[in-house]
Amino acid sequence: MQQNVDRQYVGEVPPPVEWLPDGSIRLIDQTLLPTRLEYFECHSVADLGHAIRTLKVRGAPAIGVAAAYGLAMVAAHSRATDPTSLLAELQSASDTLRATRPTAVNLAWALDTVLSTARAAHGDLRAIQQTVFAAARRIDEENCDANSRMGEYGAALIHDGMNILTHCNTGPLAACGVGSALGVIYTAHKQGKRVHVWVDETRPLLQGARLTTWELGQWGIQHTLITDNMAASLMAAGKVDAVIAGADRIAANGDVANKIGTYGVAVLARYHGIPFYSAAPISTFDFSIRSGEEIVIEQRKPEEVTGFGGVRTAPEGVNVYNPAFDVTPATLVSGIITERGVIRPPYTESIPVLRHSAADYNKEAISLEGGA
Amino acid sequence: MQQNVDRQYVGEVPPPVEWLPDGSIRLIDQTLLPTRLEYFECHSVADLGHAIRTLKVRGAPAIGVAAAYGLAMVAAHSRATDPTSLLAELQSASDTLRATRPTAVNLAWALDTVLSTARAAHGDLRAIQQTVFAAARRIDEENCDANSRMGEYGAALIHDGMNILTHCNTGPLAACGVGSALGVIYTAHKQGKRVHVWVDETRPLLQGARLTTWELGQWGIQHTLITDNMAASLMAAGKVDAVIAGADRIAANGDVANKIGTYGVAVLARYHGIPFYSAAPISTFDFSIRSGEEIVIEQRKPEEVTGFGGVRTAPEGVNVYNPAFDVTPATLVSGIITERGVIRPPYTESIPVLRHSAADYNKEAISLEGGA
Repeated sequence: MQQNVDRQYVGEVPPPVEWLPDGSIRLIDQTLLPTRLEYFECHSVADLGHAIRTLKVRGAPAIGVAAAYGLAMVAAHSRATDPTSLLAELQSASDTLRATRPTAVNLAWALDTVLSTARAAHGDLRAIQQTVFAAARRIDEENCDANSRMGEYGAALIHDGMNILTHCNTGPLAACGVGSALGVIYTAHKQGKRVHVWVDETRPLLQGARLTTWELGQWGIQHTLITDNMAASLMAAGKVDAVIAGADRIAANGDVANKIGTYGVAVLARYHGIPFYSAAPISTFDFSIRSGEEIVIEQRKPEEVTGFGGVRTAPEGVNVYNPAFDVTPATLVSGIITERGVIRPPYTESIPVLRHSAADYNKEAISLEGGA
Repeated sequence: MQQNVDRQYVGEVPPPVEWLPDGSIRLIDQTLLPTRLEYFECHSVADLGHAIRTLKVRGAPAIGVAAAYGLAMVAAHSRATDPTSLLAELQSASDTLRATRPTAVNLAWALDTVLSTARAAHGDLRAIQQTVFAAARRIDEENCDANSRMGEYGAALIHDGMNILTHCNTGPLAACGVGSALGVIYTAHKQGKRVHVWVDETRPLLQGARLTTWELGQWGIQHTLITDNMAASLMAAGKVDAVIAGADRIAANGDVANKIGTYGVAVLARYHGIPFYSAAPISTFDFSIRSGEEIVIEQRKPEEVTGFGGVRTAPEGVNVYNPAFDVTPATLVSGIITERGVIRPPYTESIPVLRHSAADYNKEAISLEGGA
């Protein structure tokens, strides 16, 4: 299957997280990209915790997959002599990994999913080991499959010759498989459509400049790097046909929280009559919040803004405002690309339909996990 | 007079260009800010040309003033024994300086102004020397006076407690005197109005992060640094009351060419119902072009976008789009702050009135120069 091939190696982009046959985890060290493609092997929870904390692996889905395999690694190498001890060991490893990025929802979700599967397992130590590994692999596979399906649905929105603007990094490095928003572009490219991508560098952490350009280059997709403040003039010149970005969290009314700068791009797109799409799996929807107003905006450290690639560029002690993300109101979102299809406004009607579909999807996933 | 005091030292910000009593020129080395405040002394055209080329002095008005004093320096130290030789020496120096920043309109204008004044001078070598120095000083003074008047007119738009967003650097370092757009904010502050400034870092060259924050800090004006892509979310949160930016060139219809990113800010301001002002002296208006469409957008080198301070942040060989400025259509400009007052839409009516006023202003300036 195409999806299995993609999971191993998407074009020339290797997966950010790989389970190795000896029970260790191989990560792309994303802090060295785009200058060097090097790997970091994790043989312990300490190795993996270090890798997550230092952003060697980043992007919510990739962190979730890495953490799930982390528990599989613990189970594989455990010296526990009874199921109770092994479960205690898994709980301890889970606590350690969870603390590395406290705000990462996928991380907590992946750890909880694997742990509860382990607790529900019947049988001996070997059976629990196998259950844990199967649960981790399923999280990886289902995530990749969801991305592939998102790619297919989203690619239908892309026409031959389009210029697409994207923000931040939403490719395989962040999301595994083909990626989320960037996976849509990759899929269109694989379908033979000629596309050109305007890549926002995405200050302050430059995920666009460092990672999205690298992925597009590996794939052979035409692209041009810009600073974030150049998008408007490109739109005015008619050089942007669509915007596709990812999402960190989507409220029940369709408001989209995503990397800082996304909202500005959405306003500019609307002003210039350009469609703005979000691409995100159903797991990104938070049906418990009615609108984006309920989303607390995380402030990050000033050093991200006062420096650039390790070079200090602003006066010592300057006040800095550094929100990690912003909220794009549903009214500016032309469509949300999910693994079950593209939903359209009014989202107060289309999201409940998706939610029903999402509930089915989750039940199916849980029953599969229970049977592993 | 306040204006004379300002010209020497605006708050805690020293002038970017100073004529020293020994006939040399002292520049603030702006490449070392905000980390270090150091000076670079020019004793020759070669020194000054080097300083302009390497951006030790930057900002169109500051470059113009520096170049004018450059010709005064040549005249002061010339060993010419007759007027013809001195004029030839000045012409040669002018050619050298003009080539340092071929696209800088103020540079060419300042050199031409001083040269033509020298050619029109009657008398001996000493008289030409004095004429050249007086012409250079007048360019400096008139520029500073225009900025002070712009500051006064613009400050009337600023109310106590306002949050103002600005883009790039338009303070004393760039424009001499109190600066242009930033001079408006400084003047309001001096009037006792409490203001807080949101400073766009202004990629790619980070003039906001490096220089505007430093000037505001020296002045004791409250400010907060943001990356360019954060402005939209601040506007959505009601935290921006007005935008004031500078201008590189203003067309006869009111279209404003300015630092890249200005247009995006103007669109966002309009979307959020926030006034957007340009501050620029009448010399910035180009009455020969009917609209911004006639302005050719200069592309700068990719290295400005692919790295900073010697640190590479994007893949080798990546395509880059790096326009130096963009054009904000007149329809998005709430008012243009000049040294003759604030003009308002419709600009096709208000600019011709300003133009008539500008003609008087120029005639007055020329007659003063002729009498020096």
